[in-house]
Amino acid sequence: MNDPKASLAQVRERIDSIDRQIQELISERANWAREVARVKGEGLSAIDYYRPEREAHVLRMVVDRNKGPLSDAEMVRLFREIMSSCLAQEDPLKVGFLGPEGTFSEQAVRKHFGHAAYGLPLGSIEEVFQEVAAGHADFGVVPVENSGQGMIQVTLDMFLTSEARICGEIELRVHQCLLSRAASLGEIRRVFAHAQSLQQCKTWLRINLPEVECVAVSSNAEAARLARHADDAAAIAGKTAGKIYGLKPLAEGIEDRADNTTRFLVIGRSLFPPSGNDRTSLLITVNDKPGALYDVLSPFARHGVSMNRIESRPAHTGKWQYAFFIDVSGHIDDAPLQAALADMGPVATQVRVLGSYPVALP
Amino acid sequence: MNDPKASLAQVRERIDSIDRQIQELISERANWAREVARVKGEGLSAIDYYRPEREAHVLRMVVDRNKGPLSDAEMVRLFREIMSSCLAQEDPLKVGFLGPEGTFSEQAVRKHFGHAAYGLPLGSIEEVFQEVAAGHADFGVVPVENSGQGMIQVTLDMFLTSEARICGEIELRVHQCLLSRAASLGEIRRVFAHAQSLQQCKTWLRINLPEVECVAVSSNAEAARLARHADDAAAIAGKTAGKIYGLKPLAEGIEDRADNTTRFLVIGRSLFPPSGNDRTSLLITVNDKPGALYDVLSPFARHGVSMNRIESRPAHTGKWQYAFFIDVSGHIDDAPLQAALADMGPVATQVRVLGSYPVALP
Repeated sequence: MNDPKASLAQVRERIDSIDRQIQELISERANWAREVARVKGEGLSAIDYYRPEREAHVLRMVVDRNKGPLSDAEMVRLFREIMSSCLAQEDPLKVGFLGPEGTFSEQAVRKHFGHAAYGLPLGSIEEVFQEVAAGHADFGVVPVENSGQGMIQVTLDMFLTSEARICGEIELRVHQCLLSRAASLGEIRRVFAHAQSLQQCKTWLRINLPEVECVAVSSNAEAARLARHADDAAAIAGKTAGKIYGLKPLAEGIEDRADNTTRFLVIGRSLFPPSGNDRTSLLITVNDKPGALYDVLSPFARHGVSMNRIESRPAHTGKWQYAFFIDVSGHIDDAPLQAALADMGPVATQVRVLGSYPVALP
Repeated sequence: MNDPKASLAQVRERIDSIDRQIQELISERANWAREVARVKGEGLSAIDYYRPEREAHVLRMVVDRNKGPLSDAEMVRLFREIMSSCLAQEDPLKVGFLGPEGTFSEQAVRKHFGHAAYGLPLGSIEEVFQEVAAGHADFGVVPVENSGQGMIQVTLDMFLTSEARICGEIELRVHQCLLSRAASLGEIRRVFAHAQSLQQCKTWLRINLPEVECVAVSSNAEAARLARHADDAAAIAGKTAGKIYGLKPLAEGIEDRADNTTRFLVIGRSLFPPSGNDRTSLLITVNDKPGALYDVLSPFARHGVSMNRIESRPAHTGKWQYAFFIDVSGHIDDAPLQAALADMGPVATQVRVLGSYPVALP
């Protein structure tokens, strides 16, 4: 092993043998995936045997087993792609999203469904709901929350009038950095970024760079490109953009909320069984009278169901009615959640289960 | 095995066990990939130990071994991703391409480098060359030929003035279909497509739909979306778009050239060793005198080197000089090619090896 060339040849031989085994196993897995379709005795489209709860379970096992050297995220990505290929042996899944291609929403689609699914770029969030309802898309992916800026109202409102079910959630995390060619903050006169990123980092900017000119540009990638050509400019963008464009991070994690995550929902037409670590989204409509909110929430506390989110919207169903979007831990089939809903009584004029779905993987 | 539920559980257990083995092997592979880096004793950036000839060799073995059920392309895709993840354990490769994201060029980047590489969307083909030369990008991906429309001159011209080396080629195949909601050609009054696609299919359109109105739109995906809402319209797009948008293919393979492929080159800063199935691109400058072309070409024939392509361009180096871009089979290290070049004599004022690189995988 002292001769580097001989040793390199040995390592490559070892890798070839590993590849042979991986390939055999992937082929065997693909054959068993066909067997699942056969056992289910259903049609030939992927939608007929796609089971989000099963995928989430498989990926959680992947994370639990992972001892490196690849990161959890990278290993999960590879298994997503393997599952995506196995599933797409017949008609691949069609997944609608807010286009065009190359956007954050498409990243979410690929993170969740892999690259063997068909992505269907659409013109608006409304269109994503419509295409899923009409069966032109098997699933849709819509943004629902940005941790810096709260819930995305147009998505919530679509649930008031549509029959869509939530089948999954996807989280994309972005940490903003201040990137520059300059050696220190003192040299910065201009900061380029997308308007939303300027918004997300405004406290940090006010404190650390009160005098600089903030210039909103079309994307953070564009900002990084501009900053690359100036000694007195910086860009707000992800760390990756700094590596790509050869800029130094002068400051990291500069967003006002440390955990800058965009959350997406996967919408479909049916409910799925538990995966073992699920969340349930409820839409509860109440008449606007004193104590209504308390009456709606107390059954959850009473039955030990923990709430993750709540958001109120004027309901479209009637004057002086309010709709609450409530996310709770657990699956709708779980006994405590069933008990809480049964306990809610007449205060709720409507309780709709929008979906029970696996909690997003990191 | 008669109880479908029991049987499904058994299949899933089998798949879980396969996944465990795949994961162990991928982790082991990733560890060996680190070992390659260590053996090479070089820095920590992927560019220091990325070897295109080795990757091509590995993928060719994958194709040779593949017995299904996954297609060769799908299996190659999975191994690309596995290699991409293993390579990206340190600083991932940075690959420049003609942006924005979501374009055909990005598809080529992903097909060749997988999703763990950093894609660097740039503003022009010239910029891709510049960023590679300056070391801001490790590699660049540029379109060089569309089988329907010939060589892309701006790319060829860049080689006249830049030191870029060709390290690989990528082929993306597109078969155009006429997609519609209508039941037959007779009902079609309008055809939507990108201008380039209309151009690529003009013979077929003239013969089969001489009376229709051809409408150029921003992309074929947009064309498919428009056709979906009309009974008398059709779109030209790939078969996949038909599946995505729920349109029937009224005719397939309607492009004037049956083999509608876009070819991309991977450009870098150095030459790489043979992979076993290579192509060499040469740039040969000659003085414009009678018989010059013949004198340049005959040594190849004499030494049994087969030529794949030739394209002439006025050279920028002097008046009345011509540059020939010539692609031949084999690697520059191969004896017959060496002999042919030695044999070329004084007719060639300059012979530059642009690169020897693995022939594109299907």
